[in-house]
Amino acid sequence: MTNIINKRKIPLREQPSGSELSLKVIEVDGSFEGPHCYIQASVHGAEHQGNAVIYKLLEYLETNPIIGKITILPMANPLALDTKVGTYTFGRFNANTGDNWNRLYFDFTKSSTEISDFAKIHIDEDDKVIGKEYKKLLKKLILNKKAEHTAYGPKYNGLLNLTLQELATDSDYVLDLHTGPIATRYLYVPEYLEKKSDDLYFPHRLIIPNEFGGAMDEATFMPWVNLQAELKKLGRDYEIPFESYTVELGSEEVISLREAEEDLLHILNYLHHRGMIKEAPAAVNTSTHVKCKLSDYKTYYAPRGALYDYQVSPGQHFKKGDVLAIGINFENLFRNEPVKFEVKALADGVLINHYPSSSVQSGAELIQVMENVYV
Amino acid sequence: MTNIINKRKIPLREQPSGSELSLKVIEVDGSFEGPHCYIQASVHGAEHQGNAVIYKLLEYLETNPIIGKITILPMANPLALDTKVGTYTFGRFNANTGDNWNRLYFDFTKSSTEISDFAKIHIDEDDKVIGKEYKKLLKKLILNKKAEHTAYGPKYNGLLNLTLQELATDSDYVLDLHTGPIATRYLYVPEYLEKKSDDLYFPHRLIIPNEFGGAMDEATFMPWVNLQAELKKLGRDYEIPFESYTVELGSEEVISLREAEEDLLHILNYLHHRGMIKEAPAAVNTSTHVKCKLSDYKTYYAPRGALYDYQVSPGQHFKKGDVLAIGINFENLFRNEPVKFEVKALADGVLINHYPSSSVQSGAELIQVMENVYV
Amino acid sequence: MTNIINKRKIPLREQPSGSELSLKVIEVDGSFEGPHCYIQASVHGAEHQGNAVIYKLLEYLETNPIIGKITILPMANPLALDTKVGTYTFGRFNANTGDNWNRLYFDFTKSSTEISDFAKIHIDEDDKVIGKEYKKLLKKLILNKKAEHTAYGPKYNGLLNLTLQELATDSDYVLDLHTGPIATRYLYVPEYLEKKSDDLYFPHRLIIPNEFGGAMDEATFMPWVNLQAELKKLGRDYEIPFESYTVELGSEEVISLREAEEDLLHILNYLHHRGMIKEAPAAVNTSTHVKCKLSDYKTYYAPRGALYDYQVSPGQHFKKGDVLAIGINFENLFRNEPVKFEVKALADGVLINHYPSSSVQSGAELIQVMENVYV
Amino acid sequence: MTNIINKRKIPLREQPSGSELSLKVIEVDGSFEGPHCYIQASVHGAEHQGNAVIYKLLEYLETNPIIGKITILPMANPLALDTKVGTYTFGRFNANTGDNWNRLYFDFTKSSTEISDFAKIHIDEDDKVIGKEYKKLLKKLILNKKAEHTAYGPKYNGLLNLTLQELATDSDYVLDLHTGPIATRYLYVPEYLEKKSDDLYFPHRLIIPNEFGGAMDEATFMPWVNLQAELKKLGRDYEIPFESYTVELGSEEVISLREAEEDLLHILNYLHHRGMIKEAPAAVNTSTHVKCKLSDYKTYYAPRGALYDYQVSPGQHFKKGDVLAIGINFENLFRNEPVKFEVKALADGVLINHYPSSSVQSGAELIQVMENVYV
Repeated sequence: MTNIINKRKIPLREQPSGSELSLKVIEVDGSFEGPHCYIQASVHGAEHQGNAVIYKLLEYLETNPIIGKITILPMANPLALDTKVGTYTFGRFNANTGDNWNRLYFDFTKSSTEISDFAKIHIDEDDKVIGKEYKKLLKKLILNKKAEHTAYGPKYNGLLNLTLQELATDSDYVLDLHTGPIATRYLYVPEYLEKKSDDLYFPHRLIIPNEFGGAMDEATFMPWVNLQAELKKLGRDYEIPFESYTVELGSEEVISLREAEEDLLHILNYLHHRGMIKEAPAAVNTSTHVKCKLSDYKTYYAPRGALYDYQVSPGQHFKKGDVLAIGINFENLFRNEPVKFEVKALADGVLINHYPSSSVQSGAELIQVMENVYV
Repeated sequence: MTNIINKRKIPLREQPSGSELSLKVIEVDGSFEGPHCYIQASVHGAEHQGNAVIYKLLEYLETNPIIGKITILPMANPLALDTKVGTYTFGRFNANTGDNWNRLYFDFTKSSTEISDFAKIHIDEDDKVIGKEYKKLLKKLILNKKAEHTAYGPKYNGLLNLTLQELATDSDYVLDLHTGPIATRYLYVPEYLEKKSDDLYFPHRLIIPNEFGGAMDEATFMPWVNLQAELKKLGRDYEIPFESYTVELGSEEVISLREAEEDLLHILNYLHHRGMIKEAPAAVNTSTHVKCKLSDYKTYYAPRGALYDYQVSPGQHFKKGDVLAIGINFENLFRNEPVKFEVKALADGVLINHYPSSSVQSGAELIQVMENVYV
Repeated sequence: MTNIINKRKIPLREQPSGSELSLKVIEVDGSFEGPHCYIQASVHGAEHQGNAVIYKLLEYLETNPIIGKITILPMANPLALDTKVGTYTFGRFNANTGDNWNRLYFDFTKSSTEISDFAKIHIDEDDKVIGKEYKKLLKKLILNKKAEHTAYGPKYNGLLNLTLQELATDSDYVLDLHTGPIATRYLYVPEYLEKKSDDLYFPHRLIIPNEFGGAMDEATFMPWVNLQAELKKLGRDYEIPFESYTVELGSEEVISLREAEEDLLHILNYLHHRGMIKEAPAAVNTSTHVKCKLSDYKTYYAPRGALYDYQVSPGQHFKKGDVLAIGINFENLFRNEPVKFEVKALADGVLINHYPSSSVQSGAELIQVMENVYV
Repeated sequence: MTNIINKRKIPLREQPSGSELSLKVIEVDGSFEGPHCYIQASVHGAEHQGNAVIYKLLEYLETNPIIGKITILPMANPLALDTKVGTYTFGRFNANTGDNWNRLYFDFTKSSTEISDFAKIHIDEDDKVIGKEYKKLLKKLILNKKAEHTAYGPKYNGLLNLTLQELATDSDYVLDLHTGPIATRYLYVPEYLEKKSDDLYFPHRLIIPNEFGGAMDEATFMPWVNLQAELKKLGRDYEIPFESYTVELGSEEVISLREAEEDLLHILNYLHHRGMIKEAPAAVNTSTHVKCKLSDYKTYYAPRGALYDYQVSPGQHFKKGDVLAIGINFENLFRNEPVKFEVKALADGVLINHYPSSSVQSGAELIQVMENVYV
């Protein structure tokens, strides 16, 4: 009694030489009916660790039966992954247009009559029927949008994202695996999932508003938030059955299979809590967990062009006035200023990310921190 | 009786080596009081022709007195201009973050109480006083925003734009000089200026809604559109005294001083119509002028990865079914398809831009056209 | 009685996503025995026009029988072709290592005992046998080198080039199709082929020494030059039966099928003179032909960082003192120097190439010219 | 009795915007006559740690008198340092031409009559006079070369290097501070300095032939090797008084001031052994030192396009058959091959460098190792 694993390719893009880039879709069906979890990795081309986790997950799924279905997309943006400039990966945005790959998803239910009509029609149905029918509507809307996107040729900005959204539409849980630049592990969690996100046991959580900003998590949960609002208008309380998280797995440009084993435990625990895995997996470390609101997620911008020596590590707590980074600027010799200067914390916090290089232009995103954290 | 020309530098950014990039501001004061025109060039780093026009304008201003004042910023984005990758300029977006340099301006009056308060207070003033006082308010709002932008260090995305907006705030007319990739000459014109834009005598005009999308023209005219709306709510009809245009001067990566002489005539004619130049300059060619709505500005996306031979030149009219480009794809040999294929027009139109290289990935912005043009 | 056309793919490189890049090899066999011509295009990824010519050549070969064999490699460097940074192609050198793709070929007979041994053994054979046997030796040497290149994994720098050399080893004539940046049409011709190169009827020819510098033409003709020298040492005069040219087909980043028709005529005339095509093709324009020694091929380096307006077109003759380019540098305003400056010719010449952008850093290769030209 | 510290700037390059890049030269004169040491950092733009060491050295020199003179160039290639593409530094080669910044130095005495003439004239002088006069000759040759390099405008490829060579010509010891990609600390040592290099106490040393390959160390020591050879021809044994090392200080893109303190100790110990510092500095760890010949410095090329998890750290010893890296390639799923594969050691060795990203194209330089090491 094992899982059935199917794989297929979806052609994505043709390069000028004629070589083709495709999505690799892996569908894992358990022996029993159950929820559907959708997992994708590295929509940002330099954020590799999710693929290591997927490798470990596939290994696990070879011998451990699940309840329900998991759809898995490793390397969900092959174009971005393959864009090497020098030895690094130019993967955060479309090298042609500059568009951030994780800001190009669509919010199909924004100011739409389809959703209010849907609410009216299905107001008296039970939750399960509503969920099922709503997914059909979302699928239809996506297909309409794809048609628009190909009327004058296949518009690449958006088409990859629509394809990913289409694949995720049928699911109940979405895990979008990313990393930061030099970063700790943390989650983006929509407000309505603050409690439920406990089941991922992540050490740091950013609680984001139930709003749309173009990212995968928002693109998949906002239709449900909007449906809830429409039903509320009609007097019905509706609990959203859908969950979506952006999962940040440390630093970019590296993979670690050893760390992937630990990362996998978080996902397996989550799936266990959602009834997709019967036996409880090994426990994960839950000692240092903190949260903050997105509005308390602050970026320090480099005060000077300089070489920086970062003094606080990702995940580390610091106090107001602590030195976060030391900069070295030899131009100062010619201004009769000290070569060395410090970037100090303006408030207590936890360091989440820092810039992946020591050489930084003034005004670049040097450090990102959580302030006003709570547990 | 000549103009007084002052110049100054505004430090912008420090590179990791400590070298500094600055804005070069040239202020030209005529002998008589009059309007204020603000002109900037190449916020997109590869769009050079505006600088050639500015060079010719400065030459003109050395001997021809004006009425009022002109503020001139050549090379308004030195970081983008200096970002050479290979032999070309990586100038459309921030190479660090991907943000399009012309989508980072701020709309200060969006959903703001300051503007409705302002309207209430000044409802009975005459137009001139309103204009003068409103500019003061805009200046204050910009300075507040700049303070926000520097609280955690100087956030580069936005800070350049805020600085440019601040310089333009005091003006009556804004000309933001750009170019397309391989392109004809055309204007972006907000709806409320459709008639007035005649004075620039541009062969092609895109009429854009009175909305904010992040660009310089919108960022400078939207506060006035919003003020007009607020005053209207209070029962007063107010004619917007302010004009702002994005001026597209042909193709990127080139300058032509000879063409700059012709381009300058357009600007001088405009300034003449606005009372800033007494004598009428030489006439410009006005034979082939067409307009269309932004919603009729269409992009053809490359159907295949291929080498393309463009068959219609920028500025050229074409009919539905005409071949716009021929593609060559040798991979087709291995699919038993013809190597050569055609991209045909879906509707009548005028070609405005095409991609600046023959080698194109599928899904890239191949060609941009005006449809449903009118005169 | 037509040609037999075979095509095959040679796998070249695997991208991080697993997508594969391959060489596309097209082999055209005529009905009669005869010479073997090898043609490749765009080893530099942005130099596209050769592919348009190959397209036209394939069209021709569908209906026109040849004598002998033609091996054709369009898009001979798919990795370079597909490396788009912004909208342009980063194709001149390996984006990972910086190595110029046309400087990575191998000179197998440099200081080698194999060749002197070969000369001794075959000193008394007739030319035809020597040619045939020597090709076998070259093939063996290339295979040995390839083995070295893969001992610790497939070393990409060199492996593409070895593969191309291997494909060309069996041939009698090699045409390596390139382009300049913004350029006229010209040929690189080794000294020993100065006379024979007349048959390509190219308007400009650079006569290069019989030396090895890493390029395809040199890599293929130098083994024959060296063989000739070894046989000479042994007292035998040997005429080299092999020809190799770098063929520069105008400017990079563009294709023109119309111009490809004219380019093709040059190649067909050449093949006709070599006995591979029976009927004489249409004549080509031979009016403006000049040559110069490589030592008279001069580069002007940009004297200043500036925007340049090029005043002389590729192919145009100029006199000492003529203005080649005008530069605009607004920083000069702050040095009380004129914004505009000129780059003047230091000697009479013909302009061959100029930089493909108007924005140029000081010290970059601004303009390339032939001096001391002769006919 | 302290050192006298002078600083000056040498203009290097003007960007298209007119902004200027300069060399920052710091000259430290001790109170007593003595040798001259030249130190430069980060000619490769992403190799930052040398600048941290220079910062610590300057701190030291503020209070510790030296004997002789030290010339210091932090950020010796500001153009390369400032070339940020994405968040990383595109600093290994000229982004315009591809030329590796550390392969553009000149070997002035290669096949030159000046040096054999010099040897004849000075054959009977004592070593000190020969050294002094020879430096004058080298300076003259460099100035001649610079004149050549500017005849048609300032040729940037080479001009930076000539300027650095000129600054180093007067010195007795040259330390060129670099880093690897992800790397341990190691030295490049010319054969004739194998013994003397002990005084730098570096854990790993590559013994390179006394040959010229374009790098700074070679460019500065080869003239002395060649002089020695010429004098030898005339029957005189001459001991080279000059030393030059390429000093590899760990990984690129980072600085660590803490590690810089340790790095500095190596340099101070060296200067102490050369009589430039009186008091012996603190000792450095000398436990794990190994050497190998350059011909035993091997590169493993990536066998597949994949994500790699490096299994051996820089500086770590390994045995034949050990797993150096694990690759993950999801394309294998579609070839019915295992996703995971291993790169195994072909021989015993010490890992020196590995690629700085986990995402690697097939054929890229994955890992560099020393084999046949000795102590």
